[in-house]
Amino acid sequence: MSQTAELAPDRQRHAPIAAVEPFHAIAVSRVAHELADAGRDIIHMEFGQPSTGAPAAAIAEAHRVLDTEAMGYWESNPLKERIAAHYAETYGVTIEREQVILTCGASPALVLALSCLFAPGARVALARPGYVAYRNTLRALYLEPVELPCGPAERYQLTAAALAALDPAPDGVIIASPANPTGTIIAPDELAAIAAVCRARGIRIVSDEIYHGLSFVGPARSLLEHAPDAFVVNSFSKYFSMPGWRLGWAVVPRESVGAARARMGNLFLTPPVIAQRAGLTAFGCRDELEQHIATYARNRALMLAVLPQLGLDKVAPPDGAFYLYADIGHLTADSLGFCERLLRDTGVCTAPGIDFDPVEGHRFMRFSFAVSTDLIEQAIARMIPWFAAQPHINGE
Amino acid sequence: MSQTAELAPDRQRHAPIAAVEPFHAIAVSRVAHELADAGRDIIHMEFGQPSTGAPAAAIAEAHRVLDTEAMGYWESNPLKERIAAHYAETYGVTIEREQVILTCGASPALVLALSCLFAPGARVALARPGYVAYRNTLRALYLEPVELPCGPAERYQLTAAALAALDPAPDGVIIASPANPTGTIIAPDELAAIAAVCRARGIRIVSDEIYHGLSFVGPARSLLEHAPDAFVVNSFSKYFSMPGWRLGWAVVPRESVGAARARMGNLFLTPPVIAQRAGLTAFGCRDELEQHIATYARNRALMLAVLPQLGLDKVAPPDGAFYLYADIGHLTADSLGFCERLLRDTGVCTAPGIDFDPVEGHRFMRFSFAVSTDLIEQAIARMIPWFAAQPHINGE
Repeated sequence: MSQTAELAPDRQRHAPIAAVEPFHAIAVSRVAHELADAGRDIIHMEFGQPSTGAPAAAIAEAHRVLDTEAMGYWESNPLKERIAAHYAETYGVTIEREQVILTCGASPALVLALSCLFAPGARVALARPGYVAYRNTLRALYLEPVELPCGPAERYQLTAAALAALDPAPDGVIIASPANPTGTIIAPDELAAIAAVCRARGIRIVSDEIYHGLSFVGPARSLLEHAPDAFVVNSFSKYFSMPGWRLGWAVVPRESVGAARARMGNLFLTPPVIAQRAGLTAFGCRDELEQHIATYARNRALMLAVLPQLGLDKVAPPDGAFYLYADIGHLTADSLGFCERLLRDTGVCTAPGIDFDPVEGHRFMRFSFAVSTDLIEQAIARMIPWFAAQPHINGE
Repeated sequence: MSQTAELAPDRQRHAPIAAVEPFHAIAVSRVAHELADAGRDIIHMEFGQPSTGAPAAAIAEAHRVLDTEAMGYWESNPLKERIAAHYAETYGVTIEREQVILTCGASPALVLALSCLFAPGARVALARPGYVAYRNTLRALYLEPVELPCGPAERYQLTAAALAALDPAPDGVIIASPANPTGTIIAPDELAAIAAVCRARGIRIVSDEIYHGLSFVGPARSLLEHAPDAFVVNSFSKYFSMPGWRLGWAVVPRESVGAARARMGNLFLTPPVIAQRAGLTAFGCRDELEQHIATYARNRALMLAVLPQLGLDKVAPPDGAFYLYADIGHLTADSLGFCERLLRDTGVCTAPGIDFDPVEGHRFMRFSFAVSTDLIEQAIARMIPWFAAQPHINGE
């Protein structure tokens, strides 16, 4: 920010404006789109977005809404009720309709949660590697990320022991299970233990459950089963295959409903009408949505089978989501450059680890397998000879 | 927030979490919807939203998108280019495509602007009365609202003189012209003078131009004509009649593009695909949109003609937008209760002044005339006898 250059002499000086990192995957993706514009055949495995589109009945409902509604500022009470019922059905957890705040995706739901729970200077723990926006949104809100390094031994996830050992206790923690970029799920016992540590130490929990429903090892459990005062965020972007519709939600602890509603109304107003109507319909499209999970499971199996052939043998098999986070330390110390070379040479676009881990991410990369199985097979066919031709570094 | 009750003894203590006020108009509107559910005929004049719906061609484009696109995370470069061209056409201002950040409405665009320009503790001036979310969003971001009382003499608008007299100079200022709740426009000379004071004193400008295009006294001018480094927010919710589509934009100073893009990606991600496609089409629907302005002009004339009959003679005639802000101090010192009584007795739903002015708003109310002329006529017919029956207070 060049703001200081023009400060008048009578101006009070404040803390510097927060520096927020961009997504590096967006930069790689821009290169991919330039290559595509120049005629190259690109396989997009850089972002975590289903390519399947919304369920057919949800699209039909959207057509109906377009023809019949003027679409003003509006919140769907039936959708809130359906989401509340979902917690009873799926997790055996009772929540009231008013605890559900509808948002324009999980990102603003996270902003809402952090803004309701923490004031500037608060310390919030999170796993490293983790979703890039956690760290950046914390910084943008002048909260302090307390990154806990999580390696293959913990399957890249936070543990109750690590949270218990933090001194001083953090004010909050962000839990993500299944996680991005690794897809690993925290086991139910460990989740209960984490909730117990947080209760004992007064650590407020924000649980990002955006990948729930996308699991290969049995259903993920909600933090709400163990911590009724957790602040949960979720979205229609992953399981429901509706990323570009921009609809998410937060489940807000009862005592935060007033604060959350006031923030939603002032900072964001309302989510899109058409997405709210279609989202309610999407809850009735389980059969169609479960077919996507079958595709992801096939893609996952194909990728896991081929990774040793690519020389990538240090991977925690993902329990859920649609990501593989691979150690490429024997091939590079510059994951951004590595992903760009892979893209330019093969047309396979992936995400560099530095988006997820500022310390170790230079030697990791993330594959998103939320594309068709046909494209996964094509990507594999292109990557096998390319990886075979890469020189190893450091004598590995 | 009840957070402190469960703080463990080893916890550091921080500043209290910001208290954010709700919209009181939402509470009145909820009563209106309950009354409607019970069979009452309600005329909604409480919110600033067109009831006309998107232009027909924009709706047709939305149908096409639903049938042909999977809709992932996406930003429309053609829409950014169209918006950049709009500034050249409408204001004679040259901006680059990359300076346009597409958002989920003007509300997150305002969050983006404040987050890019100011750190906690910064002081930001604004007119009182003003849009409730300015004050609340500032507080939610730990910025200090410096409210400048603006009365009928200044037509409820900030002046260059008031900004020049502030000691110390504020770090920033929010300008809104046409304004909410009054619809008044800052004259071009005064706008230039405000820009000059801000330049001289190093005051960063956020200009909310959401009501541009809705003017009854000639076009409103953009702050960018006088201050190329102003941060402008705007939206498809008013002129384009697409509030529930959730699409807005920010024009970002060149040196803030990186900071703004990083915040957009982390805090909000992307705006709805369908709204971006339809929004681009809406730029070609001027004829249809100008008919709405003709309706608002008729409604405004009807309301201005009847106000003396209602005993409401202290009103600044709105230059733009679709609001009338009326002094009801001779009738009440409790605008919220007054609006509720008007609603219950007549079915006409309006907004209490306390949303816009925490000091003087108890004796003001806002009418939104963004409804059909037929409904305006019905509302007037109901209000004339009701206002005539209201007792005056304080011997007025």
